Amino acid sequence: MIIPFHITEMMRRLRDRYTKIGLAQQMERRDTKFRTLRPVRNATPRSIAAYWTRLGGDPTPIADPETIRQAATYSPNIENFIGTVKVPVGVIGPLRINGLNASGDYHVPLATTEAALVASYGRGAYAASKAGGISTAVLYEGVIRTPAFVFDKLITAGLFVEWVVENVERLKSAAEATTRHGTLVSIEPILDNNVVFLICRYRTGDASGQNMVTIATHALCEEIAAQCDVLIDRWYIEGNFSGDKKASALGLLTGRGRKVSASVTLSGDVVAKCLGTTVDAMLDYGRVANLGSLLSGQMGAQAHYANGLAALYIATGQDAACVAESAVGFTRMERRGEDLFCSVTMPNILVGSVGGGTGLPSQSAGLGIMGLQGTGHGPALAEVTAALCLCGEISIVAAIAAGDFTNAHEKLARHR
Amino acid sequence: MIIPFHITEMMRRLRDRYTKIGLAQQMERRDTKFRTLRPVRNATPRSIAAYWTRLGGDPTPIADPETIRQAATYSPNIENFIGTVKVPVGVIGPLRINGLNASGDYHVPLATTEAALVASYGRGAYAASKAGGISTAVLYEGVIRTPAFVFDKLITAGLFVEWVVENVERLKSAAEATTRHGTLVSIEPILDNNVVFLICRYRTGDASGQNMVTIATHALCEEIAAQCDVLIDRWYIEGNFSGDKKASALGLLTGRGRKVSASVTLSGDVVAKCLGTTVDAMLDYGRVANLGSLLSGQMGAQAHYANGLAALYIATGQDAACVAESAVGFTRMERRGEDLFCSVTMPNILVGSVGGGTGLPSQSAGLGIMGLQGTGHGPALAEVTAALCLCGEISIVAAIAAGDFTNAHEKLARHR
Amino acid sequence: MIIPFHITEMMRRLRDRYTKIGLAQQMERRDTKFRTLRPVRNATPRSIAAYWTRLGGDPTPIADPETIRQAATYSPNIENFIGTVKVPVGVIGPLRINGLNASGDYHVPLATTEAALVASYGRGAYAASKAGGISTAVLYEGVIRTPAFVFDKLITAGLFVEWVVENVERLKSAAEATTRHGTLVSIEPILDNNVVFLICRYRTGDASGQNMVTIATHALCEEIAAQCDVLIDRWYIEGNFSGDKKASALGLLTGRGRKVSASVTLSGDVVAKCLGTTVDAMLDYGRVANLGSLLSGQMGAQAHYANGLAALYIATGQDAACVAESAVGFTRMERRGEDLFCSVTMPNILVGSVGGGTGLPSQSAGLGIMGLQGTGHGPALAEVTAALCLCGEISIVAAIAAGDFTNAHEKLARHR
Amino acid sequence: MIIPFHITEMMRRLRDRYTKIGLAQQMERRDTKFRTLRPVRNATPRSIAAYWTRLGGDPTPIADPETIRQAATYSPNIENFIGTVKVPVGVIGPLRINGLNASGDYHVPLATTEAALVASYGRGAYAASKAGGISTAVLYEGVIRTPAFVFDKLITAGLFVEWVVENVERLKSAAEATTRHGTLVSIEPILDNNVVFLICRYRTGDASGQNMVTIATHALCEEIAAQCDVLIDRWYIEGNFSGDKKASALGLLTGRGRKVSASVTLSGDVVAKCLGTTVDAMLDYGRVANLGSLLSGQMGAQAHYANGLAALYIATGQDAACVAESAVGFTRMERRGEDLFCSVTMPNILVGSVGGGTGLPSQSAGLGIMGLQGTGHGPALAEVTAALCLCGEISIVAAIAAGDFTNAHEKLARHR
Repeated sequence: MIIPFHITEMMRRLRDRYTKIGLAQQMERRDTKFRTLRPVRNATPRSIAAYWTRLGGDPTPIADPETIRQAATYSPNIENFIGTVKVPVGVIGPLRINGLNASGDYHVPLATTEAALVASYGRGAYAASKAGGISTAVLYEGVIRTPAFVFDKLITAGLFVEWVVENVERLKSAAEATTRHGTLVSIEPILDNNVVFLICRYRTGDASGQNMVTIATHALCEEIAAQCDVLIDRWYIEGNFSGDKKASALGLLTGRGRKVSASVTLSGDVVAKCLGTTVDAMLDYGRVANLGSLLSGQMGAQAHYANGLAALYIATGQDAACVAESAVGFTRMERRGEDLFCSVTMPNILVGSVGGGTGLPSQSAGLGIMGLQGTGHGPALAEVTAALCLCGEISIVAAIAAGDFTNAHEKLARHR
Repeated sequence: MIIPFHITEMMRRLRDRYTKIGLAQQMERRDTKFRTLRPVRNATPRSIAAYWTRLGGDPTPIADPETIRQAATYSPNIENFIGTVKVPVGVIGPLRINGLNASGDYHVPLATTEAALVASYGRGAYAASKAGGISTAVLYEGVIRTPAFVFDKLITAGLFVEWVVENVERLKSAAEATTRHGTLVSIEPILDNNVVFLICRYRTGDASGQNMVTIATHALCEEIAAQCDVLIDRWYIEGNFSGDKKASALGLLTGRGRKVSASVTLSGDVVAKCLGTTVDAMLDYGRVANLGSLLSGQMGAQAHYANGLAALYIATGQDAACVAESAVGFTRMERRGEDLFCSVTMPNILVGSVGGGTGLPSQSAGLGIMGLQGTGHGPALAEVTAALCLCGEISIVAAIAAGDFTNAHEKLARHR
Repeated sequence: MIIPFHITEMMRRLRDRYTKIGLAQQMERRDTKFRTLRPVRNATPRSIAAYWTRLGGDPTPIADPETIRQAATYSPNIENFIGTVKVPVGVIGPLRINGLNASGDYHVPLATTEAALVASYGRGAYAASKAGGISTAVLYEGVIRTPAFVFDKLITAGLFVEWVVENVERLKSAAEATTRHGTLVSIEPILDNNVVFLICRYRTGDASGQNMVTIATHALCEEIAAQCDVLIDRWYIEGNFSGDKKASALGLLTGRGRKVSASVTLSGDVVAKCLGTTVDAMLDYGRVANLGSLLSGQMGAQAHYANGLAALYIATGQDAACVAESAVGFTRMERRGEDLFCSVTMPNILVGSVGGGTGLPSQSAGLGIMGLQGTGHGPALAEVTAALCLCGEISIVAAIAAGDFTNAHEKLARHR
Repeated sequence: MIIPFHITEMMRRLRDRYTKIGLAQQMERRDTKFRTLRPVRNATPRSIAAYWTRLGGDPTPIADPETIRQAATYSPNIENFIGTVKVPVGVIGPLRINGLNASGDYHVPLATTEAALVASYGRGAYAASKAGGISTAVLYEGVIRTPAFVFDKLITAGLFVEWVVENVERLKSAAEATTRHGTLVSIEPILDNNVVFLICRYRTGDASGQNMVTIATHALCEEIAAQCDVLIDRWYIEGNFSGDKKASALGLLTGRGRKVSASVTLSGDVVAKCLGTTVDAMLDYGRVANLGSLLSGQMGAQAHYANGLAALYIATGQDAACVAESAVGFTRMERRGEDLFCSVTMPNILVGSVGGGTGLPSQSAGLGIMGLQGTGHGPALAEVTAALCLCGEISIVAAIAAGDFTNAHEKLARHR
């Protein structure tokens, strides 16, 4: 049979289920009336109650009294507020970091519902700290927005680029007038015939800066629209080019957010005692893992950055959707004499110590555990993020190399 | 100057900061002693208190009384438990779905700290529901694990594949003996000279199934190790090939988790009234967005699946790290007469109505809002996920096409 | 200046050049009359002469007497024939191959105009042969075509897939009726909402088979169009999905054409004597090269397959455009005790010992040098191709590791 | 059966063939003696004859008298010269181009052994010329080399980058001292922890410039090695980062070689009369083709650039291996009122009107047909290349949209 089995099987199961009722009918549009929820921007105990009346069920797990009391606190971060979901937090550390920006021994809060994650990262942190800590550096920073401008033809697009080049200082002023902390550091035009994308790259201070760059770029575009004497057909604030909220080759190559590198060299002794395996075993697996990454068409090569990223982003009020773009980069493991050099280089870390959800009560407390809450801590937070991911890489590579991976998951997820 | 400005600038800033203290010294390993946190698997009020004594600061935002009281409930999902982070939840709907598995009008809870997200998805849901609802179908399901086997040479690897082919029923039995709900639906060997990856694909019932497939595949590998007469150098439960927790071409092509398609056709009237723009404006932008996606090297082409995914995954106890692999797929918009056909096809949706964090109090309540808690709802939940993402795509494309995108963000994030 | 220098520089140069004449005018359409060349399918000395009268210049280098005499021989492979371009051929070898299909010591003809290429491949072949030869195996074969079928909606697309599954034997018959040597080995449907791609995979005997699979798939589609009771909006013989003539993740993952692996283990002695470097130096560079490949977003990881492929494809009458899809794969180098294990695995080798340009006089002689001309040699030719590419990888890695790369190119391209 | 059929089938066929003889033995190394070919750099009639004595067979098709006579002419371009392979050439045109650099009506020689290729490109050229010609522009130029420098750790790598920034003018001088025509236009450092890649980008005048940039970059690296006071562990002339001879995201994004855009707007009438289809039919197929490209993980989205590229590169003495990197880019088709706008943007065109194989007799004559031989024609040649590829895209999209694709191939490949 030349049709793959899983497809014939799927068809059979579907057919079994739908011989009687009409499949087609089930998927038809339905025009019966419905009553949409009333949008609420400024949540109050009352608006919350009104939603729950409509939703039914027991509101308590989500709309607990303390949450209801703090409705106004949450309100700037969300619409149609009905309460909070409680994500369990575990802590690891101290994680020793010797970085350009982060320096010291950090306890790191991780929010997750996946058993074994905290234990695994904790183990990696222990090994890395025992080895003298992780060196880190922000190599580069720059959040990008890429507005798109459409023209009638290529030649007009070219004249537009010339105008932008000549008026770049004016555009920089317009963009920077919208923000106290943002700086426009480069504009790079990319042409596809009559369409021009402008890669606008910003430094964003201590904030993650996604909104900041949107607003600044909007002002930049408005300035262009008002002043440019080249006829623009239409323009868009984002040409879906920046890699916002998604893995992209652009992000991989030039970075979006902060590009951070973190490394540590583990002695054979640390590998044996803290990780229960050997340098050779880890290197052997590392080569296979690298091959798997290449053969399956991943971007970069790494094991599970997303686990550490999601857990830290949620625990500290970062934008969890950015895990999609941040979970890209390169993990390297190499022999250095009898020791194991390990590094991660992550080009798209999007974190802030201010802005976004960082000021909400529990998220702010999460940052507080690391001493990285508020102004002045953005770069350090980015370095902690990379160091954390390195711990996760070390731990999972050791676990798979040693054959422990499944057992750890079975044991820790035991009660479910 | 032929060095890009952002690099010279970065160097200058660094040099300004570090002329006096030694950069190198700052990044050196430090071998002072440290005291690691004691790992805790079974959290108690006492273990939580002990952690906070160590961490310092006010524990209340994270370790509130209700959370402490439920320590045992959270414990199977986390190690080193210190409390919960409270992520605000907004609700949208009703979202009308006419699907193979999901059928009805759903209220959907979204957990996020990003202003404008809930409003934007809500707007899309309203438009889609006004248009008669979204048709959805799970096209395919299969979570994969890809163990790797290493041999001395190619010929041995070939003999191993032959053994696997001949013993496939035995392997299937071994794998399925570990699970009540999982079914092994295919094994596909991929060779790179002396290394063999086995793509083991499973149906996982109502669960997301990541742990299930790990355990089943481990058993399969143990069976191979015990029975196979071809000399295996070493094997690994995962060859970093499956795309677990990361965007990959494999996932894009063959799917990992559930592959779901969702579509709706919006009349020009709905586009005008609910979205404030026109079919042509949306199509015009769609072409540019598609170009941006291609030019910047994204996988698939879509605007911001990650936003809806992260918000729904967190609100319902899914594995938020899987956003990295789920946020991949194809959004299409096409003219149909005077109407606008819109679809998303998402090959890697990893959700479950049971297992993982779905049984925790607030997460379970989150599923309850949709009526999709517990056994029997996995496929429907996957379809709701895709429908939700379609709403987000419709809304953002309309906003950017109409020039509203920045304003919406400025207004809704106003208080910060 | 925040605009990259190369862009401002480009603009300046353009402006210098075009201040006087009108840039816009230069790029305007021109509707003056022109006389198109008369198409010629069956070339004759007379038709060749007629073309040259029109083209002007000295025809001799292209339209030499022998070429003109053989016009009818060339005619089935080309339209509007005006002569031949003479590509210089160098020979390397013997290259020892111990393969599943290729077995023996091969002299390999390489057609190129790039100095140093033949010398470099020759050096690699010498080292590999000294080491006992290269083991090779065709792991897999299958040229694909992927027709696309468009429907009104998802549900209809689903019903179509069901029809295909139920009628697969009939479709196989229809496809195979068009060919003596082709076999349809799988049909895999891929859905994106209302669009269905059918990945039709064929074995093509000794031919490369691109035309064979087009014709067979056309017949398959015609059979569907004639028999299927599901309403098809429209269909296309190729949905631009197969990866024909381009690098693609699909090709990387599942192969298109023949997937071949080749490996050899070089002793430290061979590395030193034949390649002038050491095992460690090659491994050290190999790691950096692998990193470069990943960081710059290549498909797979290899150094310069394209050089060997293009040279062999041209010398033996293969389709040189297929270099675009064939030049993808994985080169591995690993320490084995004191030795160096080297392998290539290439999933998309498209070669034939019959068909295409293989029967032309000099191309046929090219195949003849290897003893691989005509029926029965397709798989062996594929293995020689992979072995050749392995030689190139070994040689270039050694050259760059040893610092010889530039010198070799300078010396060999000396006269130009 | 959960193992895919094509795999079980492959195994069965292999087993059938190898029951008797030992598979393992067949693939073992063989250490019998062999006599390697003596390398020859300066070919003579005698050296050619010596090779053929060794190779056996009739030398005439490859070593024809004229080729033997010109041995010294071919010698700088090849080692171990044994003759020439004759690749048939067809001509199309006139192709009208209204470009920044190319301007006029061009006859274009195409060397290929694939029937239908010349006819198809000729048809596209006719349609484009009828529509007033193709507008073209070189948007950007820059061939890159990316040497890699390895250090003991991140901090040292950082100090190295600082040194490069401070000494950039000295490095530029060192690089440019090696070449009359090359200019170093940018150096961009990319760090991965302790490894630094320097993206060195050059303008290369009329040459393709691959050797030029290698030599210039080698000098730049030697200057660094001699002068830099930061301790370099080791360095490599190419870190496998530049995308030389392979498709890469870097090339897609920033270009390698010349980035050229070409466009034409076809009236409905031209589409009907020259291409036998309609604007709508082409747009309908274009959307499906674009989807196929995305779904199968291609870089960019286009139909078959490689066909035109390979044929033109071979006919004009370009490096045919560069087809692997050049065959990447974006084809767009959009409705403009009743007309069809078509464009290609190709970021990696590597062609020269001087250097490489362009001075060989028939290749030089190939360039001569277009009037683009020798100094001053590099940019124009790049624009002709892009225009040619646009013709191919128009023709194949029309053929597939109209359902003619298979017939054309069947008819034209009829004699074989």
